[in-house]
Amino acid sequence: MARFQIFVTYKKGIFDPPGATAERALVSLGYDEVSSVKIGTFIELEVEDGTPEARIAEMCDRLLANPVIQDYRIELVGEA
Amino acid sequence: MARFQIFVTYKKGIFDPPGATAERALVSLGYDEVSSVKIGTFIELEVEDGTPEARIAEMCDRLLANPVIQDYRIELVGEA
Repeated sequence: MARFQIFVTYKKGIFDPPGATAERALVSLGYDEVSSVKIGTFIELEVEDGTPEARIAEMCDRLLANPVIQDYRIELVGEA
Repeated sequence: MARFQIFVTYKKGIFDPPGATAERALVSLGYDEVSSVKIGTFIELEVEDGTPEARIAEMCDRLLANPVIQDYRIELVGEA
């Protein structure tokens, strides 16, 4: 079993509504030290051993991310 | 400016609806090698230099995560 972690974030310049909302909320709760909040998706995937990273990227492009407005980064965490 | 990354995941035993949906969808798209998908939140936070990690944990408990059903992991990425 191979484990991958995927980090999905909005592309630069694309508005991030949950991040903007959390940022405003934190500041109004008194956390004035906060200057930026960006909120994306953290995916943990278990697949068969030997699955190539290109196959994971295909899953991201087709289902797990929206390649029009989002970037993603894939990391192989371990095989066991 | 200090940068933190926060990884929010469902606690063990708590049902993860987006993960379960993505898992089923991937298998029906033909990705039979997928055995588990878990979907959480990936947060990138910029705060003033010297903000202690305990302060970030407080933000997670109060707003960024739901400590009843979710765990979170905080990582200091860099100060600049």
